[in-house]
This record gives sequence, C-alpha cells and structure tokens, in this order.
Amino acid sequence: MPNNNHNNKQFRPPCVPEVKVGGFWKPIIEVVRKKSVEVLYDRCQAAGTFEQIDVDKPVPELRIPLSEGGVSMQMFWDSDIGKITEAYSYLLADKRDAEIEKKIDALVELYKKLQQPDGYMNSWFQRMQPGKRWTNLRDTHEMYNIGHLLEGAVAYFQATGKRDFLDIMERYLLYVESVFGKEEGKKRGYPGHTEIELALVKLYRITSEPRWLKLAGYFINERGQQPHYFDQEARARNEKENLNPSVTHEYDQSHLPVREQDKVVGHAVRAMYLYCGMADVAMETYDDSLRVTLDRLWDDLTSKRLYITGGMGPSRDNEGFTEDYDFPNATAYAETCATIGLAFWAQRMLGFGPDIRYADVMEQAIYNGALSCLAQDGQHFFYENPLESDGTHNRWEWHKCPCCPPNISRLVGSIGTYIYSCAESALAIHLFCQSSGEFKIAGGRVTISQETEYPWQGKVKLQLTKCEANEFTLAVRIPGWSKDTTASLNGQELELEHTTEKGYLTLTRDWQTGDTLELDIPMPVRKLFSHPDIKQDINCLALARGPLIYCLEGVDNKFPLHRVRIDETAEFTSEYREDILGGICVINGKASLALCGDWDSQLYRETPAQFCDTEIKAIPYYAWDNREPGEMRVWLPLTTASQQ
Amino acid sequence: MPNNNHNNKQFRPPCVPEVKVGGFWKPIIEVVRKKSVEVLYDRCQAAGTFEQIDVDKPVPELRIPLSEGGVSMQMFWDSDIGKITEAYSYLLADKRDAEIEKKIDALVELYKKLQQPDGYMNSWFQRMQPGKRWTNLRDTHEMYNIGHLLEGAVAYFQATGKRDFLDIMERYLLYVESVFGKEEGKKRGYPGHTEIELALVKLYRITSEPRWLKLAGYFINERGQQPHYFDQEARARNEKENLNPSVTHEYDQSHLPVREQDKVVGHAVRAMYLYCGMADVAMETYDDSLRVTLDRLWDDLTSKRLYITGGMGPSRDNEGFTEDYDFPNATAYAETCATIGLAFWAQRMLGFGPDIRYADVMEQAIYNGALSCLAQDGQHFFYENPLESDGTHNRWEWHKCPCCPPNISRLVGSIGTYIYSCAESALAIHLFCQSSGEFKIAGGRVTISQETEYPWQGKVKLQLTKCEANEFTLAVRIPGWSKDTTASLNGQELELEHTTEKGYLTLTRDWQTGDTLELDIPMPVRKLFSHPDIKQDINCLALARGPLIYCLEGVDNKFPLHRVRIDETAEFTSEYREDILGGICVINGKASLALCGDWDSQLYRETPAQFCDTEIKAIPYYAWDNREPGEMRVWLPLTTASQQ
Repeated sequence: MPNNNHNNKQFRPPCVPEVKVGGFWKPIIEVVRKKSVEVLYDRCQAAGTFEQIDVDKPVPELRIPLSEGGVSMQMFWDSDIGKITEAYSYLLADKRDAEIEKKIDALVELYKKLQQPDGYMNSWFQRMQPGKRWTNLRDTHEMYNIGHLLEGAVAYFQATGKRDFLDIMERYLLYVESVFGKEEGKKRGYPGHTEIELALVKLYRITSEPRWLKLAGYFINERGQQPHYFDQEARARNEKENLNPSVTHEYDQSHLPVREQDKVVGHAVRAMYLYCGMADVAMETYDDSLRVTLDRLWDDLTSKRLYITGGMGPSRDNEGFTEDYDFPNATAYAETCATIGLAFWAQRMLGFGPDIRYADVMEQAIYNGALSCLAQDGQHFFYENPLESDGTHNRWEWHKCPCCPPNISRLVGSIGTYIYSCAESALAIHLFCQSSGEFKIAGGRVTISQETEYPWQGKVKLQLTKCEANEFTLAVRIPGWSKDTTASLNGQELELEHTTEKGYLTLTRDWQTGDTLELDIPMPVRKLFSHPDIKQDINCLALARGPLIYCLEGVDNKFPLHRVRIDETAEFTSEYREDILGGICVINGKASLALCGDWDSQLYRETPAQFCDTEIKAIPYYAWDNREPGEMRVWLPLTTASQQ
Repeated sequence: MPNNNHNNKQFRPPCVPEVKVGGFWKPIIEVVRKKSVEVLYDRCQAAGTFEQIDVDKPVPELRIPLSEGGVSMQMFWDSDIGKITEAYSYLLADKRDAEIEKKIDALVELYKKLQQPDGYMNSWFQRMQPGKRWTNLRDTHEMYNIGHLLEGAVAYFQATGKRDFLDIMERYLLYVESVFGKEEGKKRGYPGHTEIELALVKLYRITSEPRWLKLAGYFINERGQQPHYFDQEARARNEKENLNPSVTHEYDQSHLPVREQDKVVGHAVRAMYLYCGMADVAMETYDDSLRVTLDRLWDDLTSKRLYITGGMGPSRDNEGFTEDYDFPNATAYAETCATIGLAFWAQRMLGFGPDIRYADVMEQAIYNGALSCLAQDGQHFFYENPLESDGTHNRWEWHKCPCCPPNISRLVGSIGTYIYSCAESALAIHLFCQSSGEFKIAGGRVTISQETEYPWQGKVKLQLTKCEANEFTLAVRIPGWSKDTTASLNGQELELEHTTEKGYLTLTRDWQTGDTLELDIPMPVRKLFSHPDIKQDINCLALARGPLIYCLEGVDNKFPLHRVRIDETAEFTSEYREDILGGICVINGKASLALCGDWDSQLYRETPAQFCDTEIKAIPYYAWDNREPGEMRVWLPLTTASQQ
C-alpha cells in the first residue's frame, strides 16, 4: 500500500526536544514540570496504583467498587502509569532529571516482574480479577491500557534512549498480535476504548516495523464489522442485559464499519482517539477512503457539535455527544480529554498538509477548552469544562477518573510539536508562540526562531537563524479568525491574496540564513454569534480576541452575571494587565444591567425589566476559576429593542 | 382554642352537588366521567392493585421492585384506591350510578376483610411485608395511604350516604390515635408524605368529632421537632446510610417545626399537602401563628418558585424545589399533582376570606399546569409538565407512579367547589364558568346562576335566581391580571375603585331574587416578561389571554420553534376557532424567523443571523399535545436590536 511518491507531502510533528518553547507557554510548561507531574505521581501512589502492579505486594483491596455491569475505573490504572510516563518523558526530553528517571525505571521494573511468560501484562486481570483476560473488550479498557503504556514507553525511549519499557511492550504486543486478527484461529476483537491504534502507529514510526502498522490497521478496519464482536463476547459471558444503558454500539463508535460512519457519536474521548488512529493509519498507508471518512466526520463535528471553546460532548450520561446543535452551557460536560483528543486529531489531519480548516480548530481547542483544565497552580484540574457556572464548579485536586490531569500535562509538555511540522521539503508554522526549532528539511538543518507576544499581540517575527537547506516551502498560518493581516519578507510587504493556500502564506524559495518573515495579525475584540439552531445561545453573543474565547467572571464583575445585556453595536477594548492572573489581556466595555428593584414580589409582569449602565471586564476562558470561586459566563445576553 | 366569634368570617367550599357546572368545564367533566375514571379503575385492576388488598387471593408478586432503600411504589397502591373512590364519588354526587357503586362497594368489602382486629389496614404491610408496620414512616407512605383512603371514604359517604367505608376508616384512625401522639407511651411519629392531616380535617368537618382535628393538629405540630423522629426511626432499623440522597429532612419538610419554615423546599407534592393540612388546622383552630407561616410560604412560592403555568418543582431528582428563580423549561418536572396541590392550598387560603392573592394563583394553576395533565380523550395523562418540548414529551396511558390521573379526575369532578365559597352571610365567586349553585346563606336559600363564555370571553352575568336570605355580602373576583373591568348591578354601572376589597368587588345588601350583576373583563392578548433573575427566560416573552398561558405548537407553526423572534411591540389578536381542539381561542400575530441558509457550515460567526417575516399561531398551554406530536414552546425569544 505505501506509495513513496507521496512521502514528501506528509507533514510530521517534530520530536519534543527539537522545539524550545518560551513566551506564553513557558510558565505553563514550568508549572507542569514543577507541580503537575509530581501531583500525578503522588496521587497515583496514594490511590494504590503502584501496589496494583507490584507482584511482591499483597493483592490490594478494591478501591473503586465494581459497577452493576462489573466494571471498575480501577481497571485502567495501568493507563495512568502510561500517561504519567509520557508526560514525564516530554519534560525529560527538554531537561534530563535523575530523580524522575529513577521513579519511572522503578515502575518499569515492576512491569517487568508483572509480565507473564506469554507477554500478557495487565495489573487488573492478573491481580484483581484473574481468569477474565479478553472476556470483555467492550467495557474493561484492557487494550486502552496497552495503548497508554505504549505511548509512555515510546516517549520514554525517545527522551532517554532507555529501551526496557519499549522491549516489554513489544513482547506484550507480539502476544496481542498472536491473539487478535483476521487469521484463522484468532479472535476478531478490537478495543471498546480506542487508543492502542494511535499508539501502535507511534511504535511503527520509531521501529519501522510494519507489523505494528498492520495491527493498528486491523483494529481500525475490524471495528463495527458484522457479526459484531462485542455482541458475540457478551453472549459468551452470558450477559443478560447491558446494565449500563449508555453503552451502545454508538457509545464506542462500533455501530458501523469506520468507513461508513458520518456522524461523531457516543463517548467523545473514544471518538477522538479513534479518529486519531484512523488518521495515522490513513497517512501511513495512503488510504484515501479513511481520509474521506475523516473529513466527513470533521465537518460533522465542527459544523454541528463543537462548543465555541473547542469542547465537545455535552452530556454527562455518556460523556459524549447528544444531538446536533445541543450546547447546554451550565451543564456542559465537555471533558478536557475530549478537547485534548481534538488537538491530537487536528495535529494528525495537518499531516496531510497545512490547512487552516484543521489548524484553526487545533488552536481553538488548545487555547480554550483544553488549557482551561489546568489551574495556574498546576495542582488543580477541570474534568468538565462548562461555559457557565454559578460558582460551584471548581477544579479538583484529583478525580476518581484521573484521566485529564496527565492528559493536559502531556499536551503542555509536548506543545512545541503543535507549533511546527515538517515535510521533506517544507516547514509549516501552525501556532504562534515565542520559540525556536531546529529541523531537517530539504537535506539540511534549518533553525527557525519565532518572536511574538502571541496570544496577547498579533505581531510575529519568524527568522531563519540557520539555513543549510536547499529550496523548500515555508507555510505560515494566517488564522481564519483574522482579518487584514499583513506580512513582509525581509522588510518587503507581501501580497497575501495569491500566496495563501488553504489559509497558509506559502512561500517556496531558496531560503537563506537571516531571512525574516514578519506577520501582523490584528487582534480586535470580536463579537461572536451562534448558529440559530443552538437553542441555548439564542439572543446571546460571546467575546473573543485572537484565538481566545473570553468569559465574564464574578470576581471582576460585581453583579449577577445573567443580569448583564450587551448591545450588538457596543465597542470593546482590550488591555494587557500584568496585575491580573500573572498577566493577561482583559476586554473592557459598556453594558446594561437588568434592575430587579421594581419587581416587588412579581415573577411575571407586562412591562419588561428596566436597565442601568454598567462596565464589564472579560478574561480569557482558560483562566477562569483561578482567583476566588464565583459565577462565570461565556454567552452574554444581547440587549433587546426595549432596552435601547 | 376555637373561637366562635370568628365563625362567620370563614369561607367554605360548597359540597360537590351544590354546584352544577356547564360551559368550559362541562365537556371536561364528561370525558373524565366517561373515560378517565374507567381508565383509573381498569389500570389498577391490570396492575394487580385489587389483588393486593384481597385476603382471599394469594399474596401477589412484587410488581414494582424494591429500591436500594427498600421502598417500592407498590407500597402506596392503597392510596390509588382512595383517590379513585374520591374521583368516582364526585361524579356520583352529580349522577348516581349503580354500576360504579357496585365496584366501590366491592372494594370496601375487601378492605373490611383486610382490616385487622386492632383496626390496622394496609395491604402492603399486611400482605407484602408483614412485621414492618410503623418502622419507616419517612419513606413508606403508610400514613399517606390512610389519608387518601379517608378522603375517598368521606367523599363516598357524601355522595351516597353509605357509611361502611367511613366506619372502617374511623376504626383505623382510633387505632392510629392510640399509637401516635404526645402522650406517655405513644410514638411521636408523623408521616413522611403528608396527606393524612388534610383528610382528618375533612373527617372532622363531617363528624364534628374534635379528636380528628386534634390528631391532625398533632401531626402538624410534631413535624420537624427535635429529637427528630425520622432519625430515631432510622437508627431503630439500623439504617447505615440514607440510600436515596434526595431524601433529606427538607425533602419531606420536616427540617424545622412548621412555624419556623420560611422557604418552600423539598418534594413539591408533600409541601402542598402539608400546607393544605396547616391551612385546614389554622382555619378550624383560629391559629394565627400557622396562618402567618402559610402567608410567608405563599410569598416564597409565588415570588420565587412558581412557573408561569402554575407548575412548581423543576427537578426530577427530588420531584421538587431547587433554588430561587430556577425555571428550566424543557426539563421542568412540574408534577401535575403539585399544581393540583397548589389549587387545593389556594382554595383553603380562600377560607380566610376572598383575596385575589390566592384566587389568581388558584386560577393560574387550574387552567394551565393542572389541566394540561389531561388529554382531550380523557385517557392519557401528563405526569410532568415542561414548558418546552422537542416533541418527545407526550401523555402517558398510565404511569408507574399513577398519582396524577386520579388527582386530575378528582379536581375536575369537584371543579364547582373552586368556583364558589360561602361564609355565614357571604357568597364569594372565585372563578368564572357557566354554572349554577344553591347555597344556604344568611339564614336562607340562595340560588345563583352564572352565564359566561369564560375563559374565551370576559363577559359574566351573575343572577340571583332565588334569594330567600337576609342581607349578605356578594364578593366577586376581579382577576388581578385584568385591566379596565367594568361592572353593573341591575344595569347600573358600579364604581369599582371603592367597592373592591382585596381584588373582589364586594357588595353587602339586602339581595333580591332577580338581582343581576354583570362584569365585563377585557381580555386582550398580554405579553408577559419574567423576573430578570430567571436565567432560563432571559430575553423572552410569553403570551397570555385571560387566565390562560399560551404556547406555540409545531402543528400550527411549521418551522423550528426556537427560530422564532417576537418583537416587544408586536400586536397580537385572538380568534375563537371552533375547528381547533374542539373550540379554543387562538392567538395570531407576526414574528421574525431566523434564517440558517447563509451559515454554511459555520457554528459561530461575527455577523448575527438574518431574519424573515412569519406568522405565528399560539394555543392555550393546557391543550398542547392533543393533535400530532411536535415541538412546543411557552417562552418565545425577543427580537434584538439588529433584527429590527
């Protein structure tokens, strides 16, 4: 299948150490390095996660009880260790740390002892529920654990060159490959919770071993085929009824073979991880049928099912999707991991070439609904990301399902890989952030530096500080939300209309050391309106500036937030405030405030409310709930005719 | 405590047979008589309710499983028989029916056999769970069953003169009185679900036996005292934890002694039935401390916690109250029985004298959120009454908790008793409906006829067709929602400003046969706005006419209802349409409709939606979901500045 003629069109993210990140992301990376990863390790230790994999310790007690369906979140503690390893590894890549490596090496030793002679390795099914191996792929996260351990092992190898973890995982996967597949005598299974697919492609990319790509492709292609594996498996274990009504075949996207799917449905994180795996396989195998499917699903998500914050999956019941245009604000589930999963997916779609259709959404997800997960102290985390709060929604120290903290840590730890990507003779700049990168392009080393105060200011200076390459293409994103952007090359203004492809300023030339490309992306305050079929946002607007969605928070606005009304024609200004939240741009403006004093004890009356003037101050959504608990609101009601 | 000097100020509803009801309510009464009561009986029979009380039948199987807390809705099947008997009785009062009486007599015979020598009688605790009598007053509805059986027995006695059921219940209550009370050796218990209190006062009123009033007073006064009976009871049965987190002391209004309560909280039906019992005891014992409490609670409900439809209790979780100003529309629980309970409570508050503060709300509840329960076919019922629907909320043939169908049947069957009430020398007209009543006032018989097409037209002609009374007061409600009402007595226009007390046109004179009082209550379409703190109705209005709240229904408005926008200044007209829903007034008007065609695949954009003109047609809320399933919406979004 591979067709090497296509190879030069494939864009791949750099390795973590290839990009040095400063600016906006620097303090966030530092707080993750200094606080979050420690929190991850300590909380797992406190939970008993490490005892569960340690065969020298007594079998630990059941800390998270089994549900009626016989499932416990304790079943995927292995995945936490994988994600912690991965997050640590990205931070190690930048700065080795003997203490941290000692911790991880010790965990790898535990897994080495846990692994059975046949290669199987799962702390739950070996220690807590022996004998139930491969009896419920649908619900037990058995392969999800493999995927995260594998991502951890790959990252740790890349960061340190240590192979032990990777060797363990390859032994495990040889066993998995012997059990699952289309070949006679093998089980035709695939995971209920996707993740192993994308991890296998990571392994393929560092080993060039085609069996891992083939196995990933098998899991993707087998999904949703008839007879349905999960049904057969349920019959085999005499399951009378599905005790968790949210677990449908849509829930885990196994309702149809993947190429027949045209709606993003079910559990949002599973959907995102599936699409990542599909994109990886599509890219490595040049499978256009998968790519067409992915574009259809991308359209569906972004045109009907994506919060303005990049959040998705409004419902707590299935941690996932409901109906088109269903965007409850206060009860939005919008799980952090799903938005991070969208960033993963977007990054993979950019593998097919620079296109703001993907990069705009990647930026939207990362800077809003993903980053909102992380408290500025690095020690508290949002699992759910509502767009409205009465003040009672606050970040957790930990969560009974601790998937989000390590996920945001590994995203932040690898943020440099989202900024740039490289093809054989092209370099793409997708995100703007003070940074420098060193890449191999068109046969030579290219070092690029990016100077910018983005996302607070739209001026970006890109300089090729070293260029040993032949002619290559530089593709620089002009954000889809921007207007009137200007660009210059070595001081000469560029004409953008004809040099822009799929939203990227695209210049192919024999680049020289010192070449400097400057962008000026104006960042006025934008007033955004939602599609008329979004019932929850009728007669509202949201404020945005640059890539950031803004919100009102009670601490800055001393009135009940639902009483505010914004005039559609109101003008807003932005102001950088060093004294707020460590330095952010706030949005200031005038608004009206509904008065309640003249309502006496009436709930309903024939005259509308009276209004008075007020000032409002908005902050970036990602930064809310970092001061005192209080109300928050993204969508702000408009003034109506009588209020004018 | 009783002080007979107050007696002439007390207003009491007439008995059901004293009022003949025609007009608007006549076909509703007929469909209840011909269909609903039959449905009630048949469904109970099908459920096995009658087998549960029949000691000659084998103990029936458990049809409704026990919850984790050990409770089953099957525990209150006795109450269904009480409510069915009551509903039947009101219809019998008007027109005896040997067939129906045979059915009820047979049920009474079953209870006669079931009753134990000590008087106890509960089909669940005798047949299904023997030995658990009086072990969990909080959760098991044990006394709630007594209350409904007693209301049924009283009504059946009043309708037929047959005493058997009443005798059974009096034996039962003598036993209850021997078990519960403040006296040494008695249990200090009271019901988790109120109901017995108001029923005991009904028994007191027909027997004049003070022990029943005293027992009702004991239950009211003991509620919420410390040490808390439900806590003691829970310890006695070794309850480790409350398995139903919604069951708090607020849930059943036992969190405080009743006179210290100032918020309507918890399960809405329990709250309404408690307040009814409190009002009954307050009236019969002239207890102003209870009345002050009730006025405080009335204020709280009507100024912060009452839907525009008279519905209440937005949450499914506790079938009850949440926070002030919390009025979700699509997910409004607004249980029918709670709104009917509000009508019961309002009727009792009117016992203290005519006051539109109570009568307006009584009318609001009856004509909107209560009547909406009943399909026009009399055979389908709403348990929940949301103010917005996507078309999937439809009336049930039956409900696993079948409390609402008999409740609406008994309300409709006794609707005449809400129209009028009488004091020693006063007659009050609270509601307007074609009807006639014969009452004893000021020592003589007074017959009044009411001619009106209300609620479709506001012209009302009241005539004293026979008047053998001395001087007395006629108090006629001028609805609080009305403006510019005019009135005339025997053709002479009345000056209303100085003849109106608490919203009632109040005339004291030596009335003569033939005296005719005419009211003309204008009924323009009203546009109603909600209090600014109701987040869910921001930038919306609702349409009303007379006592009726209106809604848009998909069948009349062929567009997605959330796309409509109403201009605050738009003028609406009403029109009587014989061809719609058996004859109703519809509201017609112009509106705008948001266009989606130019949104391409955008979910959010910088320019607001475009609009086109449209026509809308609204129908009374109570009548929705009687044609084809479809969308419904009460609160309609306003036009904003840019749409003009």
